[in-house]
Amino acid sequence: MTTRAAPPGYRLESDAFGTVEIPADRYWGGQTQRALGVFVIGEERLPACLIHATGLQKLAAVGANRRLGQIAPDLAEAIARAAAEVREGRFDGHFPLPVWQTGSGTQTNMNANEVIANRANELLGHGLGTRSPVHPNDHVNRSQSSNDSFPTVMQMVTALELRDRLMPALETLSGALVDKVRAFADVVKIGRTHLMDAVPMTVGQAFDAFARQIEAGRARFTSTMPRLLLLPQGGTAIGTGLNAPPGFDAAFCDEASRLADLAFRPAASKFEGMGAHDVLVEVSGHLNVLAVSLLKITNDLRWLGSGPRCGLGEIVIPDDGLSSSIMPGKRNPTIAEAVAQAAFQVIGSHAVVTAAGASGTFELNVAKPVLVYNLLGAIRLMSDAATLLATRFVAGLAVDRARLAANVDNALLLTTALNPVLGYDRVAEITRIAMRDGITPRQAAVSGGFISEADYDARVDAVAMATPAKAPGTS
Amino acid sequence: MTTRAAPPGYRLESDAFGTVEIPADRYWGGQTQRALGVFVIGEERLPACLIHATGLQKLAAVGANRRLGQIAPDLAEAIARAAAEVREGRFDGHFPLPVWQTGSGTQTNMNANEVIANRANELLGHGLGTRSPVHPNDHVNRSQSSNDSFPTVMQMVTALELRDRLMPALETLSGALVDKVRAFADVVKIGRTHLMDAVPMTVGQAFDAFARQIEAGRARFTSTMPRLLLLPQGGTAIGTGLNAPPGFDAAFCDEASRLADLAFRPAASKFEGMGAHDVLVEVSGHLNVLAVSLLKITNDLRWLGSGPRCGLGEIVIPDDGLSSSIMPGKRNPTIAEAVAQAAFQVIGSHAVVTAAGASGTFELNVAKPVLVYNLLGAIRLMSDAATLLATRFVAGLAVDRARLAANVDNALLLTTALNPVLGYDRVAEITRIAMRDGITPRQAAVSGGFISEADYDARVDAVAMATPAKAPGTS
Amino acid sequence: MTTRAAPPGYRLESDAFGTVEIPADRYWGGQTQRALGVFVIGEERLPACLIHATGLQKLAAVGANRRLGQIAPDLAEAIARAAAEVREGRFDGHFPLPVWQTGSGTQTNMNANEVIANRANELLGHGLGTRSPVHPNDHVNRSQSSNDSFPTVMQMVTALELRDRLMPALETLSGALVDKVRAFADVVKIGRTHLMDAVPMTVGQAFDAFARQIEAGRARFTSTMPRLLLLPQGGTAIGTGLNAPPGFDAAFCDEASRLADLAFRPAASKFEGMGAHDVLVEVSGHLNVLAVSLLKITNDLRWLGSGPRCGLGEIVIPDDGLSSSIMPGKRNPTIAEAVAQAAFQVIGSHAVVTAAGASGTFELNVAKPVLVYNLLGAIRLMSDAATLLATRFVAGLAVDRARLAANVDNALLLTTALNPVLGYDRVAEITRIAMRDGITPRQAAVSGGFISEADYDARVDAVAMATPAKAPGTS
Amino acid sequence: MTTRAAPPGYRLESDAFGTVEIPADRYWGGQTQRALGVFVIGEERLPACLIHATGLQKLAAVGANRRLGQIAPDLAEAIARAAAEVREGRFDGHFPLPVWQTGSGTQTNMNANEVIANRANELLGHGLGTRSPVHPNDHVNRSQSSNDSFPTVMQMVTALELRDRLMPALETLSGALVDKVRAFADVVKIGRTHLMDAVPMTVGQAFDAFARQIEAGRARFTSTMPRLLLLPQGGTAIGTGLNAPPGFDAAFCDEASRLADLAFRPAASKFEGMGAHDVLVEVSGHLNVLAVSLLKITNDLRWLGSGPRCGLGEIVIPDDGLSSSIMPGKRNPTIAEAVAQAAFQVIGSHAVVTAAGASGTFELNVAKPVLVYNLLGAIRLMSDAATLLATRFVAGLAVDRARLAANVDNALLLTTALNPVLGYDRVAEITRIAMRDGITPRQAAVSGGFISEADYDARVDAVAMATPAKAPGTS
Repeated sequence: MTTRAAPPGYRLESDAFGTVEIPADRYWGGQTQRALGVFVIGEERLPACLIHATGLQKLAAVGANRRLGQIAPDLAEAIARAAAEVREGRFDGHFPLPVWQTGSGTQTNMNANEVIANRANELLGHGLGTRSPVHPNDHVNRSQSSNDSFPTVMQMVTALELRDRLMPALETLSGALVDKVRAFADVVKIGRTHLMDAVPMTVGQAFDAFARQIEAGRARFTSTMPRLLLLPQGGTAIGTGLNAPPGFDAAFCDEASRLADLAFRPAASKFEGMGAHDVLVEVSGHLNVLAVSLLKITNDLRWLGSGPRCGLGEIVIPDDGLSSSIMPGKRNPTIAEAVAQAAFQVIGSHAVVTAAGASGTFELNVAKPVLVYNLLGAIRLMSDAATLLATRFVAGLAVDRARLAANVDNALLLTTALNPVLGYDRVAEITRIAMRDGITPRQAAVSGGFISEADYDARVDAVAMATPAKAPGTS
Repeated sequence: MTTRAAPPGYRLESDAFGTVEIPADRYWGGQTQRALGVFVIGEERLPACLIHATGLQKLAAVGANRRLGQIAPDLAEAIARAAAEVREGRFDGHFPLPVWQTGSGTQTNMNANEVIANRANELLGHGLGTRSPVHPNDHVNRSQSSNDSFPTVMQMVTALELRDRLMPALETLSGALVDKVRAFADVVKIGRTHLMDAVPMTVGQAFDAFARQIEAGRARFTSTMPRLLLLPQGGTAIGTGLNAPPGFDAAFCDEASRLADLAFRPAASKFEGMGAHDVLVEVSGHLNVLAVSLLKITNDLRWLGSGPRCGLGEIVIPDDGLSSSIMPGKRNPTIAEAVAQAAFQVIGSHAVVTAAGASGTFELNVAKPVLVYNLLGAIRLMSDAATLLATRFVAGLAVDRARLAANVDNALLLTTALNPVLGYDRVAEITRIAMRDGITPRQAAVSGGFISEADYDARVDAVAMATPAKAPGTS
Repeated sequence: MTTRAAPPGYRLESDAFGTVEIPADRYWGGQTQRALGVFVIGEERLPACLIHATGLQKLAAVGANRRLGQIAPDLAEAIARAAAEVREGRFDGHFPLPVWQTGSGTQTNMNANEVIANRANELLGHGLGTRSPVHPNDHVNRSQSSNDSFPTVMQMVTALELRDRLMPALETLSGALVDKVRAFADVVKIGRTHLMDAVPMTVGQAFDAFARQIEAGRARFTSTMPRLLLLPQGGTAIGTGLNAPPGFDAAFCDEASRLADLAFRPAASKFEGMGAHDVLVEVSGHLNVLAVSLLKITNDLRWLGSGPRCGLGEIVIPDDGLSSSIMPGKRNPTIAEAVAQAAFQVIGSHAVVTAAGASGTFELNVAKPVLVYNLLGAIRLMSDAATLLATRFVAGLAVDRARLAANVDNALLLTTALNPVLGYDRVAEITRIAMRDGITPRQAAVSGGFISEADYDARVDAVAMATPAKAPGTS
Repeated sequence: MTTRAAPPGYRLESDAFGTVEIPADRYWGGQTQRALGVFVIGEERLPACLIHATGLQKLAAVGANRRLGQIAPDLAEAIARAAAEVREGRFDGHFPLPVWQTGSGTQTNMNANEVIANRANELLGHGLGTRSPVHPNDHVNRSQSSNDSFPTVMQMVTALELRDRLMPALETLSGALVDKVRAFADVVKIGRTHLMDAVPMTVGQAFDAFARQIEAGRARFTSTMPRLLLLPQGGTAIGTGLNAPPGFDAAFCDEASRLADLAFRPAASKFEGMGAHDVLVEVSGHLNVLAVSLLKITNDLRWLGSGPRCGLGEIVIPDDGLSSSIMPGKRNPTIAEAVAQAAFQVIGSHAVVTAAGASGTFELNVAKPVLVYNLLGAIRLMSDAATLLATRFVAGLAVDRARLAANVDNALLLTTALNPVLGYDRVAEITRIAMRDGITPRQAAVSGGFISEADYDARVDAVAMATPAKAPGTS
């Protein structure tokens, strides 16, 4: 189609849309190269795990094609080897495109088709750019479209990242929290509502609530799996499956399930998973809840560790070796701050995923790259944040028992334990007297003639109040 | 405590915090009256369903107290009758407080305590404002705090609204969509990706995707129920259960489950459901997905009905009897627009619920009223929107068969069906020729010598392309 | 058109779209009545201020029509009187439609047209429903469309609400904060960064920062006014001004400016203000900043008032007469919580306004009602919240001087003042010793031989450190 | 402090917190190295422009210190040279820290202090890691804290990125749109409201509205500048300015203004710009509006270009050389999709900035890195998107005149022009007849006896209707 020579370090490659110059050592082809010239926008890239998942998708697809007689065995073998290499990460440097490309992810799918075709041709003894015997569209993309392949990749990589990255990290965090439940089971502290001093509890109870938040977080992702594993592969261009053989969807899911050890199944309607991504918005919603949980946990821990002398100071945060640039020796809850910032990012990512998910039209949602970029980013951030929080913060937390005890002794509303004997209105009066006169509630109760010292002490016992179910006197 | 007289139409009521004037015919008491004077902000009110759920909660609570010997039977009986009346909506006009109150919902809980105490005293032959024999705190609030009661109400009313309002509405919508799947099963249309003409499909397939989105939406709420039904009641002030008898949580859940026909169970940690509301953020996330689904559906339907003459015009939207104020006779997709706006609101409510859910500190989340206000509002809006969309829009949709057929005939990319015989690159050439010369792809393919007329017609059959799995020629 | 009789209490009204039954005492007409039957969704209503602004818009429009000879003087006079009454709020009960209507606000514009036409006809001695001599479309809506009138109303009411409601409220809040700047100018407190004890400052400085946030908030709204006052009125159906006389836009703005005492001007392009609402998204963005400011302020104040005995306890929050339902006498920062919840709502409203603002297509944004509902709701909430915060919280705040002084004395990082003489590394060492050994930094510095007692005391002076610019020794 | 040897390729560096191993060729120091080991979370990095701005900030700071006699001239000179190199980008590879660090940006500020100190010592003939004669804290950070320096950098880099990156890009886009206003000034098209055919306009009018949106966008950023240029530098640790000489703030702003050619001024309260970042939330709000504008523009253009044969097809989108992976030759609006996705990201970033901005406590907002990361990312994305949209999409747009004319001829509501002569109700009747019978409105009007042919044609003239102000007959 052209007779001009390539400049040094480049090769020429021609297709139906013309001829382009491609760096000689790069395995991508014409569509990728053209896209590179077009999408000059931002620096964000789709993460490596997604590139690897395209390898997995192409590997499963060629397996299904082979099984259904859609491709010659020798080409299939070469494609499979090349796809496996992409999956293993050997070609990460050959996926140069930004997130900000066409909304179907077509350029990334074509990038995979081109890299795998070139590599397969190389394995078969041909040069890069020959488009033969293995053709990126006719063979690597056989029985597929970007429109079903890319959303299939989106769901597969999400399932893999949840299973392999997030769930273990949450288990680590949950475990670290449970360790503290045990360690602090008998440490009594003052509880706080509205930030104001309330009645006693144990430090272990606080950590128990945190741990349950994380465990519920894990359960959410599990509950989504049945929907997440339903793949649109086989829908091809718009969902009808044009140009794919009957049974391609099932064969693909068999292959993919075997390769990834996940129970993928064909979606009953391919249209839904191509035109919409509701299940990914759902996963994002669960990440949003997780961010909310982590904000609660890190905020509580920061505040309990505030001080060391003019704050609550009830827990002691671990030393991370860092300090202020002007206040020498100041120790700050840096890990909690990093985690809280990551949580803000995830909440923002959820807004992006929501907007992207709502923007589909007709047979195609065209906000796929931005959606999956934010979703995978959120999974990564929450995974790393959970691990960091567990290992560098929670694990090293200690309590300041003296401070905790002083606070409990100092609290006004221990008097709440008197409700059952004195009634709400008289207890309110005691509290107001104590507050007004700056005395202890015990002094106010006894000197005011509300109750005897002995009865007060029998009723108002911080340890018993912290664990009333064990305390016969409270029922 | 005071000897001054009440002004006409008012009664005086005194408690530990002073004396207040209350409209004589209102059943609320001093805390509510004071709160009314304090929270002069906005016009938003908690919805009636929440007020009714406080009746249910107090009814279950007094049942549990009676069962555990915490209250005299005659008082219990009067409280139960009064609470049942609140549940039935007979006292809606006696809950005057705005959403914007203390973050624990304490004023609304006290409002319920006061209304029920006054009504119970009335039933027992006493006047309003006597605080005796039934005391709002000592008896109606017995074994409870606002801090566990209000979040319990929040979860109960959410579960009830999902079951009784949203799920039936989604079933209605899903049914209306499935009717169209059947009605339009054989109507062929051009599919569109990137808004551009693609390959053929059926109108029924489009509605099938919509119906599946809604069905998946229902499944999401079901999957959340195990977490939603775990109640924090019994935690009292901070989660320890101080001043509640052992077994109160289980007895409460028994009573509440029987009354509401839902399987409530005591949360293992009461702290978690009082200091955080992750499960409600989760429910909100599912509403967010539903809003996303409805945006996809209404946008597609609006666009397919655009025109009537200069748009797509493939479906005909039902006449609602409304028109433009300046363009007489203009028919607009008003229902779709109303539903889309409701969806935007729900997405915004989700942002509020997320921020509120993340704001808890220590033993209490103090953004409860704003959280539940937005959550219940979203459930209401999505329920009404689904019903409206089903009954006033989807049910009345028709297709313009002539327009649909003309579009299919006119489409360029029918040539995609030639890929398996001609290969991607040659088909691209045909398409470009047809586009450049303004001819049909058939003309371009045949006149260009790519394929014979007979072979073209055998391969390129819109009906077969729309349902390839049925078409032997496509595999 | 029909001969059937109206049921008791109803009248019949006919137009080009048929005959409808309307409650006899209601001034709305057929389009409103039909819309009521269609839009059965939610309970949200457009606020009264918007209804009043439609009166203002119709009043300005009829003035412009009269000036340009578009309408007979007697009809104009009657329309003007009726519109003025709508503006004054005399017909609020005759605007029954929900927010969730067509996205152009057409039904609300038609509602205004119908109410005003009926009232004008009544003033002219005719009955309701005659549509003559004053016709809702031909006369009241003369030279207008909903498509330019409703967005004009949206901008006018926003400008009015900002000027008349929000700006005075912010002034009140700013004033209350400045009062505290003065009152607490000399009260030294420990500053905190990362929640950890830092170096000294004054309480007045903290309030000064708050006051400046609010003042900057006011400046933001002022900076937006030039864009907000550019009105799309005159664009009629799509922006071209079809059926409006030349000069209608300018005449309208003259009339409206005179009536409202605001400098409205015609937008150079009417298309922009009808198809998009960027300037309202901008206003919403400023409300979002204000919500952010209020969250910072209320959170700081809550935390400084936490305790009273086991928290920071540095400021004393005013008693609002409310208390816990289980912990008698407990005083909580209820106002701060109400304000914070309102701020969350505004942040969510901003998300709605953003989504609505982005959803316009071609010549019309069809998310107008939901956009303006959220925008006006946010203005109202921020106005009420600012006033409430100022009058019921900030004004009553006191400081606990003993607590403040004790905290300053107790602080470790007073040593920062030694940096200039000892250098960062040695000061870090002093701090670490003090922390490790539980001694004061003075003890650590002197006993460690880092500095003499006299030099320490000369350098480390909390009052001087709090206001270093005044302190010659610090430079 | 230690006598152990460094491993090969590393050097040892000691400070008050211990000894660490640092890669021998890296210019960072101990705090950076420790932070690298701590913050193992995510892959996000602060962008290069922020690193360069730290160079600018240190350059201005050393200038101010020199001017105020705070530092020896030789050290100052070396620091200034090193800081200038950082500003020029020569040390980008020496800032390895993730976004997810302490919330004050302390580690990045210390990173800058360490790199500059090492480079300055090198320039003075000393080795890396000597911390002498130039000390990172005592000299490079002189008169500063991270707490004032980092927010100063945040504001400076934002102002620079707005001026140097975003504003020129918006100018480019605005220019490209204005070119189309001129090119399409006389091309008549049908207008659309509610997606439905309305009345005629010109294509130029549509582009004019787009251009005005972008111009208003530019004006927004300009209006913010007075607030953005007020810097908190000089506040040091908490806002009081402890350890900074009097006049440091003004001297710094003088230096920075001269270096950056921007009118920086000292903030009246340093506390506000350190504890809150309202002005950055404001800038983010303007980016959010811009994203909303770009969504409107790209969606309209996509839809107008939909087809090419079964959509609106009124404009022809430029060929970008890319195509579908399965539908050969298909041309898609890829640029518009990339831009729309970038807009979603910016809307999400705004949510992050809002949450981060609201999270400040007391004297420090500790969500600085996540805030500025999202803000700068949004500026970059919007800048690149505007340029891309202008040069690769808008510039190449053409119109399909035949299609446009056919649509205008086909439109029903041209009848709107008859309102002034026939009245609303009769025109509605004509429209309904035309629609019901599938005839043109002209046929319906004339055959129904509503108007003569001649009068119809005189009144209903699409060109005159598109520009009514020019047409005497329309008033």
